[in-house]
Amino acid sequence: MSYPEVIYDRATGVAADTVAKHAEPQPLVFYAGWFCPYVQRNWIALEEKGVPYQYKEVNPYKKDPHFLAVNPKGLVPSAEVNGKALYESLVINEFFEDFFPDTTKLLPEDPIEKARARIWIDYISKTVVPAFRQLVLAQDPAEQSKALSNYYDALKPYVEQIAPGGPYFLGAKFSLVDATIAPWVVRDFIHTKYRGYERSAAGEAWEKYSQAIETRDSIVNTSSDKEYYKQIYAKYLQD
Amino acid sequence: MSYPEVIYDRATGVAADTVAKHAEPQPLVFYAGWFCPYVQRNWIALEEKGVPYQYKEVNPYKKDPHFLAVNPKGLVPSAEVNGKALYESLVINEFFEDFFPDTTKLLPEDPIEKARARIWIDYISKTVVPAFRQLVLAQDPAEQSKALSNYYDALKPYVEQIAPGGPYFLGAKFSLVDATIAPWVVRDFIHTKYRGYERSAAGEAWEKYSQAIETRDSIVNTSSDKEYYKQIYAKYLQD
Ligand SMILES: N[C@@H](CCC(=O)N[C@@H](CS)C(=O)NCC(=O)O)C(=O)O
Ligand SMILES: N[C@@H](CCC(=O)N[C@@H](CS)C(=O)NCC(=O)O)C(=O)O
Repeated sequence: MSYPEVIYDRATGVAADTVAKHAEPQPLVFYAGWFCPYVQRNWIALEEKGVPYQYKEVNPYKKDPHFLAVNPKGLVPSAEVNGKALYESLVINEFFEDFFPDTTKLLPEDPIEKARARIWIDYISKTVVPAFRQLVLAQDPAEQSKALSNYYDALKPYVEQIAPGGPYFLGAKFSLVDATIAPWVVRDFIHTKYRGYERSAAGEAWEKYSQAIETRDSIVNTSSDKEYYKQIYAKYLQD
Repeated sequence: MSYPEVIYDRATGVAADTVAKHAEPQPLVFYAGWFCPYVQRNWIALEEKGVPYQYKEVNPYKKDPHFLAVNPKGLVPSAEVNGKALYESLVINEFFEDFFPDTTKLLPEDPIEKARARIWIDYISKTVVPAFRQLVLAQDPAEQSKALSNYYDALKPYVEQIAPGGPYFLGAKFSLVDATIAPWVVRDFIHTKYRGYERSAAGEAWEKYSQAIETRDSIVNTSSDKEYYKQIYAKYLQD
């Protein structure tokens, strides 16, 4: 999937307020793109922890020289601390756990439960996200209906593992598992509108879970207005 | 890549001795396939830590019912603790760090260095391993020479980041980064013999590093005889 050449240059809606609250220089600089789902994973974690950070909007497709100097990979999300740049959303979320040990923990303390959380984080990355993207890319109706059923298939094992009664994947406590999948829940209205996707078709547990995710403060506060997300996907969408 | 239908049913050479030392029941059961590079990642970590474990050889392609009952995914490596099965080699290696906190640490304590180690572990998984596999799969000469240069390209950024003077990726201390790439170093004689690969073509640092890796005790002790590895890849190799 390629993103449009012109990307709106800033966050909108509730996310814009969150950006405004994080304009001051801080030891932790968070290089972000408001539109990027990988960025949102980390942004959610920062908001859950309530730690100080400076939000810097960068367009990773324009490769601003200062940004490239900090992070030669040129990807967002990227976190700069002590002059060192870290990247990869999943690595950055683990980093926040280690770097801010006295803040809200987003992974279980028990090693077995922690490993189980990581198994499902890995599952989201390797299975759910690629299936979501395939559904964006699918153009003709036959392809779209196949991609849609693949997306439901990808969700199924995940949904089966949501803690009975929820509201979050591991139960009462919000975790990095939720933060890892949340950006794709926030963006699924695209598939509802253009691909015939319905949350309820992935089960009641998924519908409830999606609801819990999209109403959580950290997620609301890092989400832009829907019309701007739509522009990002526009070239693949058909009315 | 698919593995042969008949896989030799046990470890050989030095690895066979290590298996024999880990036959007794233990709280940690390690479901392994001697031939599997992902398994070796975890096996190396267990040997580095010197923790008690029971090694159980399973053929993941035969789906033994007891194994499937423990781990419905049916993949090796798999670790069973307190009746719970964990899988995914990278998750299992992190689990060992958490579950055996008083043993040799295989990740840096410093959060930034730890994140950097995880970035390179991720790089190995996403870039080095797929390029290695492509080189196995490549059949005609043009394809093979392209796959070989891709493999060198995949190694390059990694080699540039090996600690100056080595011997290991992070310097004097062996880490999970090394354990994650080691199984593909152990198996690279296949490419030397059938694909024209030379370690020195990836730079002197890589040649030295590969040497340090393949002579490390934990790696020697978890490696089978070369002829048995060759059988695994046989259907793709041409003399
Ligand atoms: N695997 C990365 C993916 C990050 C990513 O793909 N970011 C996109 C924006 S959503 C980007 O920076 N693209 C710039 C480029 O590809 O050059 C992660 O999890 O952080
Ligand atoms: N991503 C997994 C890969 C494990 C894997 O592919 N294991 C193979 C043997 S090398 C297996 O169990 N295959 C059985 C199957 O695919 O059914 C990991 O890192 O642990």
